[in-house]
Amino acid sequence: MEELKKLIREVPDFPKPGILFYDVTTLLKDAAGLRSVLGHFEESFRDQPINKVVGIESRGFILAPTIASQFNAGFVPIRKRGKLPAETIEVSYELEYGVDSLEVHIDAIEEGENVLIVDDLLATGGTARAALELVRRLGGNITAVAFLIELDFLSGRDQLGDVEVFSLLHY
Amino acid sequence: MEELKKLIREVPDFPKPGILFYDVTTLLKDAAGLRSVLGHFEESFRDQPINKVVGIESRGFILAPTIASQFNAGFVPIRKRGKLPAETIEVSYELEYGVDSLEVHIDAIEEGENVLIVDDLLATGGTARAALELVRRLGGNITAVAFLIELDFLSGRDQLGDVEVFSLLHY
Repeated sequence: MEELKKLIREVPDFPKPGILFYDVTTLLKDAAGLRSVLGHFEESFRDQPINKVVGIESRGFILAPTIASQFNAGFVPIRKRGKLPAETIEVSYELEYGVDSLEVHIDAIEEGENVLIVDDLLATGGTARAALELVRRLGGNITAVAFLIELDFLSGRDQLGDVEVFSLLHY
Repeated sequence: MEELKKLIREVPDFPKPGILFYDVTTLLKDAAGLRSVLGHFEESFRDQPINKVVGIESRGFILAPTIASQFNAGFVPIRKRGKLPAETIEVSYELEYGVDSLEVHIDAIEEGENVLIVDDLLATGGTARAALELVRRLGGNITAVAFLIELDFLSGRDQLGDVEVFSLLHY
């Protein structure tokens, strides 16, 4: 994993002073890096039946559909409020300042389907927790929540309860 | 292609009255539909050398990375202003009401690389034209601009000049 970390660009003071941003675009633009990331995800979930892979807007969209096609599963987007055109359910979650909402189409997941949730980054865990709640309200079984990067020092994993959390890279 | 069209949900009056929205989430959540879409893209560009596949935020992110990994290329996101953390170039383009901007990292594409640009929808062509300009300013050779859906009646293709435009589905 140290090889992959070398491909990630560290940008100080983004999006605001004091934050060190791990920029995965430099990893994903590297053909070998992209394939390696996808290969690791495939390896980690190969033995589990997965029906749907859920990606959280917008960087979750980058990995989730590829993982879905690897496992012959469908792809389901979870989006910010107002972006999905048909009937949705919604969950609000707290940000550092204010509240945001995520939505999923009510017919995106069927009762009893096995669902892998994917996002690029596990920070404080608020977004992932909202995604978990949406999938559960639709009757999905959570196989795992998978991240490209986990910021261990923020303990976001503790917000996710009793669910398998997989992170490819840790900081 | 008629089989794929059957999987697309038509939502009247979204995002506003009078617009018929083609909702691809019902196609992408279908495992066979997702694989079929990706297979068609692979087939269409199989014989061309591609170094980078560019996805336009945010629904372009859904298909571009998978296509990139199929061709052993890298993935590059083009994003709305302020989302990319490192040094970027920017192009503004007109919307129906107002102006929007797209950015790409200046080191995302190298001079002379072959680039496939991917988005979900070709409507009036403003977004795709901005993406083309960004890639060209970085010195990329445009292999093609590829869309899941093209709304033929909006003639967006005419905005893109002398470039190969591939659309899987036409309305």
